[in-house]
Amino acid sequence: MSDRARRVIHECRRIASMTEEAGRTTRRYLTPPMRSVHAHLRERMESLGMDVGVDAVGNLRGIWEPPESCGNRLIIGSHLDTVPNAGAFDGVLGVVIALEWVRIAQEMRLNIPLEIIGFSEEEGVRFGVPFLGSRAVAGCFDEGLLHLVDAEGNSLREVIRDFGLDPSRVELAVADSHSRGFVEVHIEQGPVLDAAGLSVAAVTGIVGQTRGTLTFNGHANHAGTTPMHLRRDALAAAAEWILAVEGLAQQCPGLAATVGRIVTEPNAANVVAGAAAVSLDCRHADDSMRISAVSQLLEGARALAARRRITVQWAEQLNQSAVQMDEQLTALMARVIQEAGLPGTRITSGAGHDAMIMVKRVPSTMLFLRSPGGVSHDPAESVTAEDIEASLLVARRFLERFAVNVG
Amino acid sequence: MSDRARRVIHECRRIASMTEEAGRTTRRYLTPPMRSVHAHLRERMESLGMDVGVDAVGNLRGIWEPPESCGNRLIIGSHLDTVPNAGAFDGVLGVVIALEWVRIAQEMRLNIPLEIIGFSEEEGVRFGVPFLGSRAVAGCFDEGLLHLVDAEGNSLREVIRDFGLDPSRVELAVADSHSRGFVEVHIEQGPVLDAAGLSVAAVTGIVGQTRGTLTFNGHANHAGTTPMHLRRDALAAAAEWILAVEGLAQQCPGLAATVGRIVTEPNAANVVAGAAAVSLDCRHADDSMRISAVSQLLEGARALAARRRITVQWAEQLNQSAVQMDEQLTALMARVIQEAGLPGTRITSGAGHDAMIMVKRVPSTMLFLRSPGGVSHDPAESVTAEDIEASLLVARRFLERFAVNVG
Repeated sequence: MSDRARRVIHECRRIASMTEEAGRTTRRYLTPPMRSVHAHLRERMESLGMDVGVDAVGNLRGIWEPPESCGNRLIIGSHLDTVPNAGAFDGVLGVVIALEWVRIAQEMRLNIPLEIIGFSEEEGVRFGVPFLGSRAVAGCFDEGLLHLVDAEGNSLREVIRDFGLDPSRVELAVADSHSRGFVEVHIEQGPVLDAAGLSVAAVTGIVGQTRGTLTFNGHANHAGTTPMHLRRDALAAAAEWILAVEGLAQQCPGLAATVGRIVTEPNAANVVAGAAAVSLDCRHADDSMRISAVSQLLEGARALAARRRITVQWAEQLNQSAVQMDEQLTALMARVIQEAGLPGTRITSGAGHDAMIMVKRVPSTMLFLRSPGGVSHDPAESVTAEDIEASLLVARRFLERFAVNVG
Repeated sequence: MSDRARRVIHECRRIASMTEEAGRTTRRYLTPPMRSVHAHLRERMESLGMDVGVDAVGNLRGIWEPPESCGNRLIIGSHLDTVPNAGAFDGVLGVVIALEWVRIAQEMRLNIPLEIIGFSEEEGVRFGVPFLGSRAVAGCFDEGLLHLVDAEGNSLREVIRDFGLDPSRVELAVADSHSRGFVEVHIEQGPVLDAAGLSVAAVTGIVGQTRGTLTFNGHANHAGTTPMHLRRDALAAAAEWILAVEGLAQQCPGLAATVGRIVTEPNAANVVAGAAAVSLDCRHADDSMRISAVSQLLEGARALAARRRITVQWAEQLNQSAVQMDEQLTALMARVIQEAGLPGTRITSGAGHDAMIMVKRVPSTMLFLRSPGGVSHDPAESVTAEDIEASLLVARRFLERFAVNVG
């Protein structure tokens, strides 16, 4: 294991110990362990000669200005908050590895200024709304968000103030106007690279997503006394639809469609289900494909409900468009992966990331590292030293090319 | 509406007001409202000249000895306990209507002694074990049952004692050795008679039943980042099996097979389900058909699990044989239904009843009354005056024939 790969893993594991809950890693937005993370990373950044601060929305920001700066800045980073009972690498890896990017740039005496951002909030756990940190940097933080209230009844405004920050200064967190690129390094959180035997991939974009709940209403009946032909079984209807969802997604390349949640009434072994509510999570990089899939699935639900003499209702909870990463920057990333001698691939992200917010203001791309076993949001989440090392070979070439092209 | 039909409905509704919970009918074994029911029915029985007592397991028992008794007794009755938030007719109807049977026998001056039993416990709500009352009368009450404990921590023995009864005398509750028949009048609790437009039916037997839980274990994965071909989705597997259960039962006459309960882990919209546990309730009047259906369904579960690279486990909770009603008594019931000018039908009961316990000791049969809409175990449960009147025409002829054949 190289020194730098060992250092990256060690740092991620150390930061994972800064948690709200003993024995598990849980670090929500601006909770006390976030202050420890800031102190720890500030020390690391300052030892690299960086100028460090925390912006009004709680993002940790360190700036490296080279002696002969070209002025055009590259931002590198990811988020520092976690889901409950998280692993050690989701988000944090992208901040810790950014320190290595700064080391590399310094070794190479590149003249591009670098900014590391440790976003304060991406997961949306504390206030139910994700990307609070990157919204501010991208200049799209709606002031109304300050009225959000967490489970303990604290408003976002109060939480910011209690952390020692000034909520009236959120708009000053916007990215410097000389920013010419943003790179987010992140674990894949899926099994694609692992299954293909690849270390890293350039991310072309983030899928669009529809979420909603479909509720079948039939009639609850005694399981012993109701002959099959007189039933209006909501659970059997839901089962038929769950298979239809799976079947469509298996036939349609790039479509991920999932029923992960089901709630049945009365949910008793000896009662034919009177109602069954199922979730739909439908994602595709191409919005028109996604919208057509959802409408086909809803059409199918209505048809099977009619055939079964039951009713069905759809409640849409999310309809979010796909986001493309910056084409030039992603092409550059893909090219340097090949130049680093790695089998190249491009991948679409099935999950949301700060980069999909940042791209609204700064040309952005992402570099995914393999997630062994596809595991994430779990203490077993991991990353290999080999893949970190591979990503740093990519980093070296990316920084070099970026300095030439943009600097 | 005839006076006697009006009286039966009025009495059932009045008894429904004797409840543990204001505004809903809930009357578990030997709870205070059961004492009110006993007092109320005792008064009704005594006004018919019956000799009334409560046996050691809490069954209310009233005996009519005609002036010139033949000695051979007919028992008529059903249960007085209810499920939580019950209707007014399940069980109670069969006790209240038995009073009309006694009136009819008295009017006809039949010489058969009649016993009405209001069984203390059939639903199994308080101690999790059904048929406590009829087990004692049938002489198959296992003394070990006295150690059962209810949700409040009271043993069955203590509950019996606290009601003023003597748990050491349970075996004396056994049916009189001169008992020659038992008739249970009960609402169908299913939609078959209603769908066929019939008032009543003779019950040939009670289906056998298998109950168990099938658990599919796949792998929980991120719904956005896990492509379809890399999933091991436990909910999709469960859905496939639920449809197989429904499909088999639809093809196999007399088979009722139900998945009414499903529990999915983690049951989140954006996570491919890692585990799904589903109930199976499988019933048929022919035990070999039922056993073969269950084994076919489990074979199917194993096959689909293997194809989906997941595991499956079956835990059987109940394997109860079908029970036949007494052939002669049921033939008599069917014959008098026809003689009463009613379209005759025989029906298999899909639910358990005290008669399936009583038949172990006394030749038993049942008379089902139509359940409008198939509704039971629900405040909306009902019975029509027309069907009560029809059942009493049947009662008259049944008593007459029984007196001739058995008396």
